[in-house]
Amino acid sequence: MGERKELNSESDTMDNPGFRRGSFSSSNSSTSDEALVEISGTTLDFSMTDDVPPLDRDLGEFMSYNGEGANVPNKMMDFLEEPIPGVGTYEDFNTIDWVREKSRDRDRHREITNKSKESTWALIHRVSDAFSGWLLMLLIGLLAGSLAGLIDISAHWMTDLKEGVCLRGFWFNHEHCCWNSKQVTFEDRDKCLEWNSWSELIISKSEGAFAYILNYFMYVLWALLFALLAVSLVRVFAPYACGSGIPEIKTILSGFIIRGYLGKWTLIIKTITLVLAVSSGLSLGKEGPLVHVACCCGNILCHCFTKYRKNEAKRREVLSAAAAAGVSVAFGAPIGGVLFSLEEVSYYFPLKTLWRSFFAALVAAFTLRSINPFGNSRLVLFYVEFHTPWHLLELVPFVLLGIFGGLWGAFFIRGNIAWCRKRKNTQLGKYPVLEVLIVTAITGILAFPNEYTRMSTSELISELFNDCGLLDSSKLCDYVSNFNTTKGDQLPDRAAGAGVYTAMWQLSLALVMKILITIFTFGMKVPSGLFIPSMAVGAIAGRLLGVGVEQLAFYHHDWPIFRGWCSPGADCITPGLYAMVGAAACLGGVTRMTVSLVVIMFELTGGLEYIVPLMAAAMTSKWVADAIGREGIYDAHIRLNGYPFLEAKEEFTHKTLAMDVMRPRRSDPTLMVLTQDSMTVEDVETLISETTYSGYPVVVSRESQRLVGFVLRRDLIISIENARKKQDGIVSTSIIHFTDHSPPLPPHAPPSLKLRNILDLSPFTVTDQTPMEIVVDIFRKLGLRQCLVTHNGRLLGIITKKDVLKHIAQMANQDPDSILFN
Amino acid sequence: MGERKELNSESDTMDNPGFRRGSFSSSNSSTSDEALVEISGTTLDFSMTDDVPPLDRDLGEFMSYNGEGANVPNKMMDFLEEPIPGVGTYEDFNTIDWVREKSRDRDRHREITNKSKESTWALIHRVSDAFSGWLLMLLIGLLAGSLAGLIDISAHWMTDLKEGVCLRGFWFNHEHCCWNSKQVTFEDRDKCLEWNSWSELIISKSEGAFAYILNYFMYVLWALLFALLAVSLVRVFAPYACGSGIPEIKTILSGFIIRGYLGKWTLIIKTITLVLAVSSGLSLGKEGPLVHVACCCGNILCHCFTKYRKNEAKRREVLSAAAAAGVSVAFGAPIGGVLFSLEEVSYYFPLKTLWRSFFAALVAAFTLRSINPFGNSRLVLFYVEFHTPWHLLELVPFVLLGIFGGLWGAFFIRGNIAWCRKRKNTQLGKYPVLEVLIVTAITGILAFPNEYTRMSTSELISELFNDCGLLDSSKLCDYVSNFNTTKGDQLPDRAAGAGVYTAMWQLSLALVMKILITIFTFGMKVPSGLFIPSMAVGAIAGRLLGVGVEQLAFYHHDWPIFRGWCSPGADCITPGLYAMVGAAACLGGVTRMTVSLVVIMFELTGGLEYIVPLMAAAMTSKWVADAIGREGIYDAHIRLNGYPFLEAKEEFTHKTLAMDVMRPRRSDPTLMVLTQDSMTVEDVETLISETTYSGYPVVVSRESQRLVGFVLRRDLIISIENARKKQDGIVSTSIIHFTDHSPPLPPHAPPSLKLRNILDLSPFTVTDQTPMEIVVDIFRKLGLRQCLVTHNGRLLGIITKKDVLKHIAQMANQDPDSILFN
Repeated sequence: MGERKELNSESDTMDNPGFRRGSFSSSNSSTSDEALVEISGTTLDFSMTDDVPPLDRDLGEFMSYNGEGANVPNKMMDFLEEPIPGVGTYEDFNTIDWVREKSRDRDRHREITNKSKESTWALIHRVSDAFSGWLLMLLIGLLAGSLAGLIDISAHWMTDLKEGVCLRGFWFNHEHCCWNSKQVTFEDRDKCLEWNSWSELIISKSEGAFAYILNYFMYVLWALLFALLAVSLVRVFAPYACGSGIPEIKTILSGFIIRGYLGKWTLIIKTITLVLAVSSGLSLGKEGPLVHVACCCGNILCHCFTKYRKNEAKRREVLSAAAAAGVSVAFGAPIGGVLFSLEEVSYYFPLKTLWRSFFAALVAAFTLRSINPFGNSRLVLFYVEFHTPWHLLELVPFVLLGIFGGLWGAFFIRGNIAWCRKRKNTQLGKYPVLEVLIVTAITGILAFPNEYTRMSTSELISELFNDCGLLDSSKLCDYVSNFNTTKGDQLPDRAAGAGVYTAMWQLSLALVMKILITIFTFGMKVPSGLFIPSMAVGAIAGRLLGVGVEQLAFYHHDWPIFRGWCSPGADCITPGLYAMVGAAACLGGVTRMTVSLVVIMFELTGGLEYIVPLMAAAMTSKWVADAIGREGIYDAHIRLNGYPFLEAKEEFTHKTLAMDVMRPRRSDPTLMVLTQDSMTVEDVETLISETTYSGYPVVVSRESQRLVGFVLRRDLIISIENARKKQDGIVSTSIIHFTDHSPPLPPHAPPSLKLRNILDLSPFTVTDQTPMEIVVDIFRKLGLRQCLVTHNGRLLGIITKKDVLKHIAQMANQDPDSILFN
Repeated sequence: MGERKELNSESDTMDNPGFRRGSFSSSNSSTSDEALVEISGTTLDFSMTDDVPPLDRDLGEFMSYNGEGANVPNKMMDFLEEPIPGVGTYEDFNTIDWVREKSRDRDRHREITNKSKESTWALIHRVSDAFSGWLLMLLIGLLAGSLAGLIDISAHWMTDLKEGVCLRGFWFNHEHCCWNSKQVTFEDRDKCLEWNSWSELIISKSEGAFAYILNYFMYVLWALLFALLAVSLVRVFAPYACGSGIPEIKTILSGFIIRGYLGKWTLIIKTITLVLAVSSGLSLGKEGPLVHVACCCGNILCHCFTKYRKNEAKRREVLSAAAAAGVSVAFGAPIGGVLFSLEEVSYYFPLKTLWRSFFAALVAAFTLRSINPFGNSRLVLFYVEFHTPWHLLELVPFVLLGIFGGLWGAFFIRGNIAWCRKRKNTQLGKYPVLEVLIVTAITGILAFPNEYTRMSTSELISELFNDCGLLDSSKLCDYVSNFNTTKGDQLPDRAAGAGVYTAMWQLSLALVMKILITIFTFGMKVPSGLFIPSMAVGAIAGRLLGVGVEQLAFYHHDWPIFRGWCSPGADCITPGLYAMVGAAACLGGVTRMTVSLVVIMFELTGGLEYIVPLMAAAMTSKWVADAIGREGIYDAHIRLNGYPFLEAKEEFTHKTLAMDVMRPRRSDPTLMVLTQDSMTVEDVETLISETTYSGYPVVVSRESQRLVGFVLRRDLIISIENARKKQDGIVSTSIIHFTDHSPPLPPHAPPSLKLRNILDLSPFTVTDQTPMEIVVDIFRKLGLRQCLVTHNGRLLGIITKKDVLKHIAQMANQDPDSILFN
C-alpha cells in the first residue's frame, strides 16, 4: 500500500510502468516530484493493478498507439524511411496536445482524400471512413441502451430480493411475479400469493413481531451481502470502477490520459457492481455511473475504428457523445443528455459532435425503450402528467424550494468534501470494505422501518412526483374524498386524511436520513451516482411543502392570496409539481447544471408549461449555491483529487502576467535549452538525465536565445536510442542538428544526427508581458500542453499546463503543491 | 448609384465617412483596394444612408463608444491622466479584436469587484451589475415577444384584407369577425355574414364570374400595394431592413461591425415592412426576419447597460441570446431557439450565454403566448397531435423525403445564388422596386386561382400537418367514410374521395409554383424569411407522398410490405406526419441545420416518438445537400456578399504554411515596422500616410527585427494628434519611443513622445513554419484580427483575418479578390 509511483503530468519520468513500447535505456530520472493520483477520494494504489495485469494492461497497451509518421505535421520524414515506433504517443497520466492530435487527424483525412482519387477501393475506403463515425455512434447507442436495460432489470430484481422471492421462479421480480396473479388491483399488489416475503418462506408467517424482525434481518443481510460483493469486486478487479466517474471523465475529456479508466474491465466490473450497489439500498443512484458505463462502451468500440483508435482528440469527441448517450438512457432524455454532455462534461465539443451525440443519445434511448425495463413503454424514468396549470403566485414556494436546493447543494458539497478529505488523510481510507459495510448496515437498519426509505429511491421519487388520481391507494393520496365536486379528470383540492399526515412524518424522517447518509455514501469505493439521492431529497422537501401549501389553500381559501384561483372545489395546488421542482432545485444545487437540468426535467413531463417553475427553482438554486461556494460537486472532486483540469467556465480574473508564471523563476537556474546544431549526443543525453522536463526548446545559439522550435523529451530519447541502434556511426560525440542541412563538421568527426523530423517548428509563444487571463484562455481554447515565453524576440521561459493550474490555485489562496496531483 | 466608398476590413482607410469621432488630419490614404459592401444580394449604396442621416447615424455614433482607458489591458496609463478619446474604439466595417474586448470587460469587472469592498453603494453597484445581464434578457424577451405578437396579429389582419373586410369593424380579421357569428361549424366558416368579400362589398355579389374577377383583381391590387409600401419604406428609411438578416447577423456575431444594422430605424422599418411583405402574399416567411427584429431589440436595449454598451464582445453575447429569443417566438420553440442560436448563428457562445439565452427565449415565448395571436393558447406555430405510431418500414419514404429535401435545398441555393449574382451584376439590380412589384404581381396572379396558394403559407402548412379527424371538412380530408370501422379516436385508413384527388392536383401545382417563385423572391429588397417557404415545399411534397403511400397501403394491404401492420381497418399511415417530415427535410436542405431543426420540430409535436423519422429525414437531407454543395443558404449569401466571416464549422484542409500566406510576399517590399525608440513623429506620420495598414509592428531595431509589440494605426494617429495639440514641445522632429524610459536625447532636442500606453505588448505570434490549419484554428478560436509571423525569433511578416479569408478562398479555387468585399 505504501508504494508510490512517480506520476507527473507535465514532466513525466520515463520509468513509468505504463510505458512499455520503446524499451530504451534512460534510467536516472526518478527525481521528479512525487505525485500520487487519486480516484474518487480514496488513495489509488497503483501496485494494485498488478493483480490484474493481463487484461487491464492489454487494454492500456491497446490504447497506446504507434504514431504513424512524425508528430510534427507537414514536415518531411527524412531521417529514416519508416516512422520511429513510439514517436507521437503519450504516456499514462499525461496531457495530450490537442493541436497536434487534430493536425494528425487532418493529415490522415487529407491522405485518404488524396488516395481516393486513385482507385475505387480507396474511394470506398474514404466513404466508409466518413461514415464510420455514424456507425460508431449507432453501436454506442445500442450497447449503452442494452447495458442500461440490463442494469435496470437486474437492479429491480435484486432490490426485490431483499424483501422476498417469487415462487413461480426466483428470477421474477415482485412486479413480474404478481403480473398474472388474480389480485390485479393496485391495492392488493402486495398480497399476491406467488410472492413470498422471507418470513413467509422461512417461518410461513407474514405478520407478527418475529416475522417483522426476520424480514428486517434478511433485508439488512442481503444489503450487506450485495455491498460486500460490490466493494470486493471493485477492489480486486477494477479500482477505477468506483464513484460516479464523472469527475474523471471530465478530466479525461479535457485531455488527460488515464489508461484503463475506460477499459473493458472497468466496464464489466462497473456494470456488475453498479447493480449490486443500487440493490444494496445505499443512498446512491445509477445515473452518474451509467455515464461512465456509456463512456467505457464508447472507448472500447473506438478500437474497432482506426480513425478513433489512433487519435486521442477524435476519441474524446466520441466519448463526449457517449456521455450524452449515458444521460439519455439514465433519464430517457436524449436532448437533455446532449445538453448535459455539452454543459457539464465535455471540453472540446464541435458542432459535428453535437449532431452525432444526439444520434447516439436517441439510439440509446430507443434501445432502452425496446428492452422496456420499466414495463410501461415509456421512454422516461419518471413519467409524470399534471392536469392543472400553475399560478403565478406559486412562484414564491418554487423560489423557496430553489433556496432550499441551493443550501442543500452547498451544504452537501462542503460536508462530502470534508468527509472525503478526512477519509484521505486519516486511517479511515485504509479500510474501504469496512467503511462500505458499516454505511450499508446503518442505511439498512435505518431504512427498513420507514416505508419511504425501504423502497428504492427511484420508486420513491416516482411516488412523490405522482399527481394523486381518484383511485390512487397510496398513503400520500389518502385525502378526505368528496366525490360530488369531482369533474372529469380534475380532482379538487381536498382535506388531507390520516394517511397523508402519517406520510408527512415518515417523509420528514426520510429527508433527514437521506440528507445525512448521502454525505457519507458518495465517495465510497463502490459505484455511486448523485442524481437520484439529490433528487430524492428535493422531491421529499417539495412534496412536504406542496402538501403544506395545498392544505393552507384548502383551509384558508378566503385569504387574499388564494382568492380567485383557489376557491373551494378548484384543483389549484399540485403537490407532485412541487416535488418535481424541489428535485430540480436540489439537483441543480449539487451539480450546478442549468439548461440541461431544465431540459431533462422538461423531457420528463413533456409540457413546456412547467418549464417556468423549473427554471425559477434552478436559477435560484444555482445563485444561492454559487454564493456559498463556486464549485459544483464534480469540480470539487476534481480539485480534491488534484486532476489537471483547466476549468473552462470560470474566468481567470487576476492581473498577473506570463512572466510571473513562467519557469525558470528569477531565482532558478536558467532555462534548459538545446542548440540547433552544436550539441553532441552525449550533451543531450546528459541534459535529459539531469532534468525531468517533458520537452526542451531549441534555439539558434545560447547567446542569441532565438527560438527555433520545441522537442519533446520522449521523442528525443526514442530517436537517439533508435539512431544509436540502427544508424551507422552515431556515437556519443556525434553532433545532433535540428537544421535542414548538417553543420560543417571537422574532418574525421563522426556523422551528425539529424533530428529535424521530431522538432516542432511551430511551438506556441507568448510575450512575457501577456496577461495571464489571455494565457489561460489560449491554454483552454487551443488545448495546449506548454507555451514558450519570449521577450523582444528572445526566449525567456516556458509555461506548462501544470504551471497554469498551480498559478490558478495560488491565486485562489490554495496551496498549489498540496492541491495538485497529491 | 455609381458612388463607391472605400471600405476595407483589415486595412481601413481613415477617410471613411462612418468614422467621425477623432477629427484628425490624416488625408492621403485613399489608395486602398476599392471595396463595396453588399447587403442581401443587392448592391448597397452607402450614399443612400445620407437620406436618413439624423437618426441612423445617431445610432451609429451611439454604438461607437469612447474607450475608457487604453486598449492594452493591465498597462499603466502614464501618458496623460485622462484617456485619449477614441483610443480603443472601432470604425464601421471593421473586425473587432475579441481578446482585447474580453480583457477590457475583465478589467471592468475587476475594478467593480475591488471597489465593492469600499462602500455599500459600490457593493450594490456590483450586485446590480451582476444581475444586469438577467434583467437585459428579461427585457429582450418581453420586447421580442410583444413585437412578434404584434406582427402576427397585423399580418393576419392584412392577409385577410386582401380577400375582404369585416362589417362589424374593419379592424377584425376574418376569424375574429366570424367568431360570434351564428354559423359556428367549420364548414360554414367561409359564409359568415359579417365578413364580406370585396365583390360582396362593391357589387353585392359573391358568386359568378365577374365577382370572381373582381375579387381576383382586389387580391392582386392589395398585394401590389403592400409590396410597394414595403419596398419603398425599406429603400427610403432603412436599407438594412431587407432580407432575412441572418447572414449579416452571423457576420456581426463573428466580430464584424456594421453600424446601424441593428439600430432602431432598422427595427421599426423591419417590423412594419415585415407585416407588409408577409401580407402581400409573396413566398416568404417571417421567421428569419424575426431573428433580426429580436437582435435589434437586443442591441437597442444594450444601450441601457454600460456593461454591454461599451463592450463589443459582451454585446455579441447578448445578441446571441436575442437570436435565440427570435427563433423561440417564431416557432414557439424555446429550446430549439437556443440550439439554433448555438448551432447556426453564434460564433462565441459561452455556457453562461446558453443559460441566459434559454431564459430570454422562454420569456419571449411566454410573452407571445400571453398575447395569444393564434387564438388557441398554444405556444407553437403549428400544433400537431398524431395518434398513430409510425412503422419501421415507413423509414423508406421518410428517407426519400430526406433525399427530396436535400435535392431541393441544393437546387434552391444554386438557383437563388445564381439569380442574386445576376441581379448584382446586371441592370436588374437597379430597379429593386420594379422587381418586387413584378414578382408580387406574378405571385398574386398565380396564387389566387389555387386555394392552397391563396391562403397564407403558414395556414397551408398547418393544414398539411393536420391529421384528418372525423369532422374535418377540408378537401384534404375528403375520404370515403366507413364509420363502422372507426374505433374511438383512431380513424382507419380509407379510400381517398374526389376532394383528396382534387387537392392532390392543386397541391402539385402549388409545389411547382412555390419551388420556382421562392428562388426569385429571397434576396429582394423586402424583409423575407426562408423557413416558411422551405417548409411549405417540403410539407406539400410530404403530404403528396403520404397520401400516395396511404392509398397504396389501403388498396394493396395484402402486399408483403404492408402485411401485418396495415391490415384493413388499421390506421397505419398518417399523411400529416409525412408532411412534417418533408418540411423538416426541406428546411434542413436549405439551412443545413441539424440538432436545432429536429428539436424545433420535436417541440411542435411534443412527442419523442416522432424524433426518429425527423432525424432520419434531416440526416439524409443534409448528406444529400452537402454532397452537391457544402454551403447552406446563409453561408452562400455571406460569401456572395463578401462578408469577412471565418466559418467555424468547415475544417481548413490544405497543407499550406503561415509563410505562404503572410505579407509581405517574397516579391513585395519589406514589412513596414516602427522601431521602439529611434523614429521621429515625422517619420511615423510619413509611414502612416504612405501605407494603409491598420497596424504596425514595433521592433527593437530594423537590423535585429526583434519584435516588441504591435500598435494600431488608429490609436497611433489619435495619440499623435492629441499630443501635438495638448503636449508641450511635441514637434515633427520629436522622437517617438515605445520603451519605458526615454532614449538618451542629444542636447536641445525636442522632448520625446512616449507612446508605450498604446503599444500592445502581447501581440500573437506564430512561426513561419506553422501550418495554416493551425493558424486558421487560432484565428477562429481566439477571434484575432491579426497575427505576426516570426522565424527563429525574427519578425518576418503579418497575417490578417483578411489574408486568411483570401487564402481560404484561393484554396477553394475561388478568385480571392472577386469574392471578398466586392
